[in-house]
Amino acid sequence: MSSNSQWGGRFAAGPSAIMQAINASIGFDRKMWRQDIRGSLAHAAMLAHVGIITTEDERAIREGLEAIAARIEAGEFPWDEALEDIHMNIEARLTEAIGEAGKRLHTGRSRNDQVALDVRLWVRDAIDGLAGQVEDVMRALVEQAEAQAATVMPGFTHLQPAQPTTFGHHMLAYVEMLSRDRGRLLDCRKRLNESPLGAAALCGTGFPIDRRMTAEALGFDGPMRNSLDAVASRDFAAEFLFACAMCATHLSRFAEEVVIWTSPYFGFVKLSDAFTTGSSIMPQKRNPDAAELVRGKTGRVMGALIGMLTVLKGLPMTYGKDMQEDKEGIFDAAETMTLCLAATAGMVRDMKPDGARLREAAGAGFSTATDLADWLVRELRMPFRDAHHVTGRLVARAEAKGSDLAGLTLAEMQAVEPRITEAIYGVLTVEASVASRACFGGTAPENVRHMAAEWRERLA
Amino acid sequence: MSSNSQWGGRFAAGPSAIMQAINASIGFDRKMWRQDIRGSLAHAAMLAHVGIITTEDERAIREGLEAIAARIEAGEFPWDEALEDIHMNIEARLTEAIGEAGKRLHTGRSRNDQVALDVRLWVRDAIDGLAGQVEDVMRALVEQAEAQAATVMPGFTHLQPAQPTTFGHHMLAYVEMLSRDRGRLLDCRKRLNESPLGAAALCGTGFPIDRRMTAEALGFDGPMRNSLDAVASRDFAAEFLFACAMCATHLSRFAEEVVIWTSPYFGFVKLSDAFTTGSSIMPQKRNPDAAELVRGKTGRVMGALIGMLTVLKGLPMTYGKDMQEDKEGIFDAAETMTLCLAATAGMVRDMKPDGARLREAAGAGFSTATDLADWLVRELRMPFRDAHHVTGRLVARAEAKGSDLAGLTLAEMQAVEPRITEAIYGVLTVEASVASRACFGGTAPENVRHMAAEWRERLA
Amino acid sequence: MSSNSQWGGRFAAGPSAIMQAINASIGFDRKMWRQDIRGSLAHAAMLAHVGIITTEDERAIREGLEAIAARIEAGEFPWDEALEDIHMNIEARLTEAIGEAGKRLHTGRSRNDQVALDVRLWVRDAIDGLAGQVEDVMRALVEQAEAQAATVMPGFTHLQPAQPTTFGHHMLAYVEMLSRDRGRLLDCRKRLNESPLGAAALCGTGFPIDRRMTAEALGFDGPMRNSLDAVASRDFAAEFLFACAMCATHLSRFAEEVVIWTSPYFGFVKLSDAFTTGSSIMPQKRNPDAAELVRGKTGRVMGALIGMLTVLKGLPMTYGKDMQEDKEGIFDAAETMTLCLAATAGMVRDMKPDGARLREAAGAGFSTATDLADWLVRELRMPFRDAHHVTGRLVARAEAKGSDLAGLTLAEMQAVEPRITEAIYGVLTVEASVASRACFGGTAPENVRHMAAEWRERLA
Amino acid sequence: MSSNSQWGGRFAAGPSAIMQAINASIGFDRKMWRQDIRGSLAHAAMLAHVGIITTEDERAIREGLEAIAARIEAGEFPWDEALEDIHMNIEARLTEAIGEAGKRLHTGRSRNDQVALDVRLWVRDAIDGLAGQVEDVMRALVEQAEAQAATVMPGFTHLQPAQPTTFGHHMLAYVEMLSRDRGRLLDCRKRLNESPLGAAALCGTGFPIDRRMTAEALGFDGPMRNSLDAVASRDFAAEFLFACAMCATHLSRFAEEVVIWTSPYFGFVKLSDAFTTGSSIMPQKRNPDAAELVRGKTGRVMGALIGMLTVLKGLPMTYGKDMQEDKEGIFDAAETMTLCLAATAGMVRDMKPDGARLREAAGAGFSTATDLADWLVRELRMPFRDAHHVTGRLVARAEAKGSDLAGLTLAEMQAVEPRITEAIYGVLTVEASVASRACFGGTAPENVRHMAAEWRERLA
Repeated sequence: MSSNSQWGGRFAAGPSAIMQAINASIGFDRKMWRQDIRGSLAHAAMLAHVGIITTEDERAIREGLEAIAARIEAGEFPWDEALEDIHMNIEARLTEAIGEAGKRLHTGRSRNDQVALDVRLWVRDAIDGLAGQVEDVMRALVEQAEAQAATVMPGFTHLQPAQPTTFGHHMLAYVEMLSRDRGRLLDCRKRLNESPLGAAALCGTGFPIDRRMTAEALGFDGPMRNSLDAVASRDFAAEFLFACAMCATHLSRFAEEVVIWTSPYFGFVKLSDAFTTGSSIMPQKRNPDAAELVRGKTGRVMGALIGMLTVLKGLPMTYGKDMQEDKEGIFDAAETMTLCLAATAGMVRDMKPDGARLREAAGAGFSTATDLADWLVRELRMPFRDAHHVTGRLVARAEAKGSDLAGLTLAEMQAVEPRITEAIYGVLTVEASVASRACFGGTAPENVRHMAAEWRERLA
Repeated sequence: MSSNSQWGGRFAAGPSAIMQAINASIGFDRKMWRQDIRGSLAHAAMLAHVGIITTEDERAIREGLEAIAARIEAGEFPWDEALEDIHMNIEARLTEAIGEAGKRLHTGRSRNDQVALDVRLWVRDAIDGLAGQVEDVMRALVEQAEAQAATVMPGFTHLQPAQPTTFGHHMLAYVEMLSRDRGRLLDCRKRLNESPLGAAALCGTGFPIDRRMTAEALGFDGPMRNSLDAVASRDFAAEFLFACAMCATHLSRFAEEVVIWTSPYFGFVKLSDAFTTGSSIMPQKRNPDAAELVRGKTGRVMGALIGMLTVLKGLPMTYGKDMQEDKEGIFDAAETMTLCLAATAGMVRDMKPDGARLREAAGAGFSTATDLADWLVRELRMPFRDAHHVTGRLVARAEAKGSDLAGLTLAEMQAVEPRITEAIYGVLTVEASVASRACFGGTAPENVRHMAAEWRERLA
Repeated sequence: MSSNSQWGGRFAAGPSAIMQAINASIGFDRKMWRQDIRGSLAHAAMLAHVGIITTEDERAIREGLEAIAARIEAGEFPWDEALEDIHMNIEARLTEAIGEAGKRLHTGRSRNDQVALDVRLWVRDAIDGLAGQVEDVMRALVEQAEAQAATVMPGFTHLQPAQPTTFGHHMLAYVEMLSRDRGRLLDCRKRLNESPLGAAALCGTGFPIDRRMTAEALGFDGPMRNSLDAVASRDFAAEFLFACAMCATHLSRFAEEVVIWTSPYFGFVKLSDAFTTGSSIMPQKRNPDAAELVRGKTGRVMGALIGMLTVLKGLPMTYGKDMQEDKEGIFDAAETMTLCLAATAGMVRDMKPDGARLREAAGAGFSTATDLADWLVRELRMPFRDAHHVTGRLVARAEAKGSDLAGLTLAEMQAVEPRITEAIYGVLTVEASVASRACFGGTAPENVRHMAAEWRERLA
Repeated sequence: MSSNSQWGGRFAAGPSAIMQAINASIGFDRKMWRQDIRGSLAHAAMLAHVGIITTEDERAIREGLEAIAARIEAGEFPWDEALEDIHMNIEARLTEAIGEAGKRLHTGRSRNDQVALDVRLWVRDAIDGLAGQVEDVMRALVEQAEAQAATVMPGFTHLQPAQPTTFGHHMLAYVEMLSRDRGRLLDCRKRLNESPLGAAALCGTGFPIDRRMTAEALGFDGPMRNSLDAVASRDFAAEFLFACAMCATHLSRFAEEVVIWTSPYFGFVKLSDAFTTGSSIMPQKRNPDAAELVRGKTGRVMGALIGMLTVLKGLPMTYGKDMQEDKEGIFDAAETMTLCLAATAGMVRDMKPDGARLREAAGAGFSTATDLADWLVRELRMPFRDAHHVTGRLVARAEAKGSDLAGLTLAEMQAVEPRITEAIYGVLTVEASVASRACFGGTAPENVRHMAAEWRERLA
């Protein structure tokens, strides 16, 4: 079992074996068969419409392509490495099946605009799928937010509890992040939604083709304005990968929280067996595998992004074979995001917050000290910075006494600041704290309910 | 001159020296002084409007901040490392100058929403500056396109000449790329244009502040909808960096072409001394330093992007000190793009295409073979794939004869394909070739002129 | 305060202002002044030795350079942007000071080999500094390991407690990681330690210089074997950056643990004020800022690595101005690592583990279930997989009873597996568990003590 | 053919379908079957040796595993998704085949150390394969260097011809780069060559296993010193990926040169059909597809590196499921490097330099001006900087006259500098120039021959 059988040995057959191995793309670009056939159908219909081919030819092509699609769908299509890529595999079979007409299909078209078209269509389809999945995660978060709008929990900075917030408010923060991720996907879709078809090899074509007709048939906003750009550009692929990487990064933040929250020392939420793996001998051990995978997979999506930018860096116009490297990164990133979004939606729905534990944690650690300071400012017109000093002294006194802030008597408080009144006790509970932060965007349960309802409607 | 004086030695003073060195941000965040003061002015005006501070306090604050701005602008502000960051530097000086009122400024605000605000404002300003610069490069390209709309040159795939195109068409391809880069910057601007101010530390505030008022005063579309998101998110920074990285990548492609085109074996364009450096003893050596720097600087912008995504990966909510790492990458990327865009605009305007050399190159290598094949399809209704075979045989014959395609006699042509007529000579010149590719987006000079005019108008 | 004053406006002066701004490196490459002068001293001594310059010239050069060094050290050297870079700044001042002899210094040398030399020397110095700092962190970890060799704590997988381990063993795991980081730095040093001096512009020189002499004088193992490689290669810079990025990643893992461990729900360790920042009103809030910064700064080092590789990608030989982009990434990464290593060493020494808390956590959750299963295999010759099933049933019984494993009576145990004997209680304590894992590399305190002592010696 | 059939739809079955899809690794980790079986064989032999299992059990395990290996090799092994990974697939089949003994194999071992072992062995095998391939590329370059030791060509800086060099010298520059790449692979191999086996889940084991025995049997230098480190660390994977990325970057530089050199305007080398693809109608068009793919594939290797570092960033100890993400990047990078190295070796051997064209290019553009300046310094003791000014004036005169430097008469030269003698003509030819650069590492053909011979021997 030497390593030679794995590395290098297969290239003993010489240069042609090497070239075949490095050059062929059919191993991965067959994923675009739907897009390739869709594009050819639109191209053929247009060729017939403007009279470049006959309607008989067009019908033969159409029926031939539909038959090929059916065979691929059924897993019966004879893919051939020697035909290198998806385009030649399909065209060769078509010509085999329908003869002469098949040879006319490529009129006014080139592999350069054909592949640019296929990749665009594939990315567009991927965006539609992923944007839908992002919305589903958002819906799941909104459901949790509505259910837990008033469930108090510690709000964190630096992984240290800072002020009380609610579980619902926390969920909605992710809704905001994901709504921007969705916006980035849709902006990318909008920007890429122009048809490269008709750019031919690079300069356009002398045939009187109708680029607007194919663009419209394929759901594009119109044809691209410059043929060189059409075959040379892949910024849409990089933009798609960035949108994925950014979304993956947001999911990784949520996943990190799930990992931390499900550790026994936090114990903030529980995940069912569906999203954890256990140990046959340690029943309490629930490894949050799904969350860890979502977190870890950020790496490969960032890698795909960097890979694509690196491919394009310093590439002279127009098409270079380097650009064949655009596909695998896209395919892998889209597949990864599909998994991560599905897993996240699942975890959000599965997750059970432990209300009692969260309430207890929210109240610990003088968490309403800010509320006390704000009271001093508001009621006693104390300058903000001075109010902080007074609060610090009150907290120190409570700490010395071993109580929380509400455990100080009014006399004890007045010893620090004589103008303090009984009214101060009204701001020292966790519930008062969250309720008071009621200005737009604040953590108050009524805000959370209102915002969740608004999102629910928008996502309906 | 030992290395110890550079590394480690300075930390002999112990933990506090280390913590100061790693923690202080005033060394770089002072770049945001304009944004910090702008934000404080808006905040103070709002506090006075809703009655949290008096109008006298507001005036004192306003005048104090304006005085500070003037001192900073004049380079006379005494930055203090011990005050750590831009916010404390300014607030401390303000309180020093105006007393009590200064201590009230921070009411209903926290460093967390303040810094989120400053960074957003800074990025928004940067986008405005860079989008304007992108437009300037586009204008420069359009000028060249109009001047060289009919200047034929070889169109390349794989750095091999493929078909004749025009210099103008080539320039316009970059206009398209840059217009998408501009679109990405503006989409980023639109998405980030919500105010985090009022999120306070993380949960919002109990003070009756008016977030819509500050948002409007600062030119935002409105306040952010979730306070946790407001202080925890930096996707706008990553999106900005991606928009920069993508644009830098496009500039690197142009720069690569400049480097190749100015090599003596290509000799397609000349750059003046303004953008090259020479050798005192090799006068013909014009090193395209500016282009190389534009190409190379892609690396640091991509690095900044990866850096930002890495910072955010797996970061639990809300604010973590890790996020202090958002600034330097943004500052460096914006500065880098400013330089690269200025240099590119300069090179585009400076660049002189060598028309004769380009014309000669465009005609070499049977560059109109595609036109011949298309003629066979169009005029003789030959299937596309068959037409290619015939063309291949004609080219082989010309090559054997040592002539170009137009150098074959009609008899020689008819020996290969008897149906060929005299008319074929009409498609074999470079000029006929480019003129024929007149469908939308094609390389025909009339197209180029039309499209350049359209862009000129849009950019006016 | 419009944005125009920041962006673009400064280039109103035209191309020369742009070119100056993008081209000049003196703003950052002056960091290499020590290396530049060291290289020139060695070069001059060699020129005199082989008779290319006179010993008088050599003395004048030496004294001139030493005077310049003194002025730079004192902060009094008049850096001049117009002289572009560190090399010309120093050479110009030298010639100003000593006349004719200064003009002879550059004989048999070029800026291309000079800058390659300076960067190599700088990186070598940085490695020496950083390797020393890595050792210091290792020493700090070893000290903690010795002090806490027997302090039991939960060992984690998936952030879920899995088996008892000791704090010392945990510390030593990082010693191993850092020792490999150190190895990578030293391998990089070894590989780069060849002198490019003498490669001149790119082809070597016709002067009878002695490359071995300068190589030796500068502490190199010898001269590089190929002049083109000498001026064209920067893999040493990328390798250095990778060594830094890998080490930063290890530090980020430790930092993450510090952040988690200091959260109140874990409460595993305490950090003093030296490495945390507090809140004036929440005394219990100790934000682990230093740890977060160490964690976050991983991003910029990874960014610098990607930046360097991107610069080099697809760069034709030999020197291109793109390569000027090598420096800032190196400088920033070295500075960042200096800070992060100093901060980590500081935190390791500062950190106080809470032994009682760790002991309690180590014993919770049936943490010795594996020990029980292993007993079944060892004593009853039960197949491993079967032993796991029996253990699972025992744990379930203990859980139902509300006890830990040692709380089950022998009868209760025998009800599940009759062959179990009293001896089993000997493996159910946390202390027995850690002590039993005594094979090489295992968690037993004796192992930890032994290994810590070994490391202490190696690091002495 | 809606996109729903591709995205999301498959998860209709609910959480379990999602978890299965995101969690299972058998789809890719089966690539490690050889390593997994090798590890199990060594583990079983050791278990028998120390008496934990019987020799009968060991024989049954051995024969069972060999039978499984044979079935996998033959493509007949029934991989099962439900068994998740390579380890369980093999163990389950083994137990099915040999019963009880199979259940004992996992004694004193855990999936955590098993997978760490497999990945290490796989990477070690990959390094052995790739290092051999790097040597093969080096050999191919040395062959070209020997054949073209005296073939003059222009040496470039900034893609501008600078001084004459030789094709052989240029080839040897890449030999140097690759020898460092090989060194990095081997350093990585050395550093990773310690056995994690025996770390068990994370803390080691209480069984009296002999870690040195398995380490030796598997070709390791010894067992790892810390069990937590053994299961938690993947720096070896990142280091491997960096070594690949650096090598890929070097190959990308060579590939870029091939692309540029084969463009018709350079015409420096020719590649056969084996490594180019043509156009059926443009016979002169030889697209350097292989070179472009080698250049472009740098992106995915850099992406894999970044992906791995990102996975590890901020990961608390020890094993987290995130680390399952280590494999696909490694597999893809190794496969990519295999292809790129094979293609590069092939291209180097296939490549035919056009000596006449290179000679002509080498002589153009006053390429020996530096030699002239050096003559002035050497013979007239002119200070280097002054010699440059004189040379500049001579070049200007030649340029005005339309001749090269040797075309100036002695009188014309002396008009600029009276001390110039007839002897100067001896340094103005290309051949004299390259021959004169004879100091160590210089471009002189004798150097090239000597160095090539040395490399040939070292690589034998």
